[in-house]
Amino acid sequence: MTAATTATPTLVTSDKVVLLGAAVLTVLAGAADFGHWGSVTAFVVSAAAVCLLASVVGRSVEQLGDRFGPGATGVLQSALGNLPELFICIFSLKAGLVDLVRAALVGSILANLLLVLGVAFVVGGLRHGTQQLGSERARTIVVLMLLSVSAMAIPSLAHWLHTPAAAHETSFSVIVSVLLLALFAMSLPFSLRRSASDDVSQGDLPHEPPRWPVSLAVGLLAAAGVAAAFVSDWFVHALQPAMDALSVNQTFAGLVVVAIAGNAIENVVGVQLAARNESAYAFSVILNSPVQIALVLAPLLVLISQVFGLASLTLVLSPMLVVVLLLSVMLAAFIAFDAESTWIEGASLIVLYGIVATAFWWG
Amino acid sequence: MTAATTATPTLVTSDKVVLLGAAVLTVLAGAADFGHWGSVTAFVVSAAAVCLLASVVGRSVEQLGDRFGPGATGVLQSALGNLPELFICIFSLKAGLVDLVRAALVGSILANLLLVLGVAFVVGGLRHGTQQLGSERARTIVVLMLLSVSAMAIPSLAHWLHTPAAAHETSFSVIVSVLLLALFAMSLPFSLRRSASDDVSQGDLPHEPPRWPVSLAVGLLAAAGVAAAFVSDWFVHALQPAMDALSVNQTFAGLVVVAIAGNAIENVVGVQLAARNESAYAFSVILNSPVQIALVLAPLLVLISQVFGLASLTLVLSPMLVVVLLLSVMLAAFIAFDAESTWIEGASLIVLYGIVATAFWWG
Amino acid sequence: MTAATTATPTLVTSDKVVLLGAAVLTVLAGAADFGHWGSVTAFVVSAAAVCLLASVVGRSVEQLGDRFGPGATGVLQSALGNLPELFICIFSLKAGLVDLVRAALVGSILANLLLVLGVAFVVGGLRHGTQQLGSERARTIVVLMLLSVSAMAIPSLAHWLHTPAAAHETSFSVIVSVLLLALFAMSLPFSLRRSASDDVSQGDLPHEPPRWPVSLAVGLLAAAGVAAAFVSDWFVHALQPAMDALSVNQTFAGLVVVAIAGNAIENVVGVQLAARNESAYAFSVILNSPVQIALVLAPLLVLISQVFGLASLTLVLSPMLVVVLLLSVMLAAFIAFDAESTWIEGASLIVLYGIVATAFWWG
Repeated sequence: MTAATTATPTLVTSDKVVLLGAAVLTVLAGAADFGHWGSVTAFVVSAAAVCLLASVVGRSVEQLGDRFGPGATGVLQSALGNLPELFICIFSLKAGLVDLVRAALVGSILANLLLVLGVAFVVGGLRHGTQQLGSERARTIVVLMLLSVSAMAIPSLAHWLHTPAAAHETSFSVIVSVLLLALFAMSLPFSLRRSASDDVSQGDLPHEPPRWPVSLAVGLLAAAGVAAAFVSDWFVHALQPAMDALSVNQTFAGLVVVAIAGNAIENVVGVQLAARNESAYAFSVILNSPVQIALVLAPLLVLISQVFGLASLTLVLSPMLVVVLLLSVMLAAFIAFDAESTWIEGASLIVLYGIVATAFWWG
Repeated sequence: MTAATTATPTLVTSDKVVLLGAAVLTVLAGAADFGHWGSVTAFVVSAAAVCLLASVVGRSVEQLGDRFGPGATGVLQSALGNLPELFICIFSLKAGLVDLVRAALVGSILANLLLVLGVAFVVGGLRHGTQQLGSERARTIVVLMLLSVSAMAIPSLAHWLHTPAAAHETSFSVIVSVLLLALFAMSLPFSLRRSASDDVSQGDLPHEPPRWPVSLAVGLLAAAGVAAAFVSDWFVHALQPAMDALSVNQTFAGLVVVAIAGNAIENVVGVQLAARNESAYAFSVILNSPVQIALVLAPLLVLISQVFGLASLTLVLSPMLVVVLLLSVMLAAFIAFDAESTWIEGASLIVLYGIVATAFWWG
Repeated sequence: MTAATTATPTLVTSDKVVLLGAAVLTVLAGAADFGHWGSVTAFVVSAAAVCLLASVVGRSVEQLGDRFGPGATGVLQSALGNLPELFICIFSLKAGLVDLVRAALVGSILANLLLVLGVAFVVGGLRHGTQQLGSERARTIVVLMLLSVSAMAIPSLAHWLHTPAAAHETSFSVIVSVLLLALFAMSLPFSLRRSASDDVSQGDLPHEPPRWPVSLAVGLLAAAGVAAAFVSDWFVHALQPAMDALSVNQTFAGLVVVAIAGNAIENVVGVQLAARNESAYAFSVILNSPVQIALVLAPLLVLISQVFGLASLTLVLSPMLVVVLLLSVMLAAFIAFDAESTWIEGASLIVLYGIVATAFWWG
């Protein structure tokens, strides 16, 4: 993380603050882990470090991607944006926290579709009144989200509702994971082309040229990636004792804590866009995350857990998680088809998220 | 109910008929209760009295509200329109008929979304052909309805699908009820503003100026409210023996009988509007009722049952009730997004209501 | 099937090929059945014969219907298009394969809404880019589909979620079947009028005048109908040993094999239309089939099984079948409301179909 202290003219103040913060927090998180600080302190410090490293990854990808057009940025962000969450889930699986990982996957989707969307609607609605969601593009993403999340949900439905399939939980989950990843691979050219044409139509978006030299962006990306791997490990170390200290069960920790920490930066971006009245763009950013989780993160984790002999993760979620997942996805779809958002809709979404989270408080 | 006999020039003929009828039926319902008439007769008389008192309440609110603008009318109607149903549910809880109240809450929503909407589509469709549902406003109400009903359904889903939450049924229901009421309170300024602006856009609606003096409206409202409380008590007295005499189980009685009697006037208004080809207005009136039930009536009853030590009502509904509730809400949402109604859609809705009611006939 | 060899100037080459093929395969299927050929061979031959006979029925109906306007064609196709599937299901019930028939009913709907729609989107999307789905008409069909499939699903939901109703499975299914058929009867004038007006608005569709004399069309229809009855019997004969030989369970055979074979021609037509960029027409053809199955085929089979004392078929489907059915119908509805299709949506639909089919492979 020495790059963080290298002041070049290409780094603006906010870059420097983030890089410095990430470096400091990474060091602190390491100290907390090796120095056996209190579990809650260690947990909070490493969670903050994860958030800032996610921001460094995001900024590096943006600077890199700008040289290859918006399509490539989108694909790179798809591939690397979920990196911290991927690391946390892998280390959690290594620690045997399977329920936490399952809940975190669903929780990331819920946090996006209920909490972040809700906050974006409230912030945007209070500042700018009724906002348009740019239905055309949002609808296409929503349909893809519905289909990919439904596909991801079939192993759970089969497990709980069709007894013979329950005996083949692992092989079925592996098959579905391969199909979901294949679907993602097929969608790449689509994403590349789509993003490119969108950029033309959104030509009035404030778009700054790349400021960082390629070497700096690659270097920071590599450094942040490596740091994220270490910090994720420490985060998971601290998580279990912190959960015990705070009497939080595994499912709630995954559904709420890990889901929010792992997506913090994406979440903030979505809300900021809504606050700047770029509600259509905010909406498509927020909706895109569940597609990534269903098509990339979840299947990748299933395959990794099988191949590397970690605690076996399948796509079989608890009944409540599946139902809440499908319900949220459908509600988000109806909201997308409404094409307008108001702050009271946002408030309802936040309340709904709170109620769901409360249900899982008792674990 | 002496006000009913005071003939002032401000009362038109239909007012007089309704007031006279309400007064007579209230007296008859009391006589039936104290005179130990046959249970079915007592039940029918008190049910008719409830309907007419609901109409008196509705007319008083309309006359009152007109002085404060359409927003205030809407809010007043929200607050008082469900008054008779609230009384019936409270007395039913006092009598220990918890299953009846649960079914009545779901039944009111089903009756609106399937039966009344179906009849409105058939009547409107046969008279005027394909009707427009004024998608803009309908969609916003539909999204609010989806979110509030989903929030109301979470305690049931958690109870049946997430074992640890089942042990906290009461406290979870109380938390959710407080959140739903808070959401309603937050939505009040929204409703006030929305209704006001709608009125401007619907300026061509036949809108009569208030005819009643304020004192008469307030007096009638108070009188009808008090009478509704008594009649509801007698209605519940008669209900249980009448159910036994007719071999109707508690769930069916709540889902169909109480739900239709308690919403009779609202239902008639919705169908009348469709018949006059004001289909968009009819649709939003019909859709608004489920929002009121989810955000006000259901949580209020939960809190009242806990605070006043009545039979404990929670938001945990039977699995079939929850599924049918969520299904109906989603179907109504798809219909709202279609933005057009035909009589065959109406016929399908009525058939669907009949099938659901039949399923609960076996109790 | 001697008509197949009568070459008249009204038969174009494709007619001749289909008629000849149908005749040859019908004879072969009979030979396979009486000659006790290998079960898999007999099964494949009879399945192919069913497909071609379905094509003959379709062509005859089209030629006949053209004389009575497009409305009559639609109604005739509704009535006769599912003829081969009806025969297969009746003979399957006679052979006691109740699970197969239940799965075939759901499978036909899934095959249309996921597989055929998916292939149509991929073929159309790869050739013509983003396609429009002509939302107006598609939405009306989708709403009818949602309502009729929901109505059909209530007996299953009641059976699994509302214990008292489970004891009345047969009578409830009969009541629902009568209501669904009544709804179909009521929708006939609507379909007649709708199709007629649609034809005017779609006046630019390439529409050829009837080529066959009425006598030929009636004769071929009768011959193909009788042949279809025989071939269906042989198909069911061969099905069970073929299933055993291939280790396929009854549900999978119904859901995938029978569903695809029984709808082969309709399926091909839908894909061909999408390939010719008549995507809106393709979409409404594909969506119409589930309505027919819910309103006609399923209730008719229930009543036939009760009246003729075949193995008792009710509308109670296994939990997994109901959930997958409702999910698919809702996904199709969202796609219809999106009003645009892309090939990646098509690919997702195909993947989803594959995953569902896989779930039922373990039976």
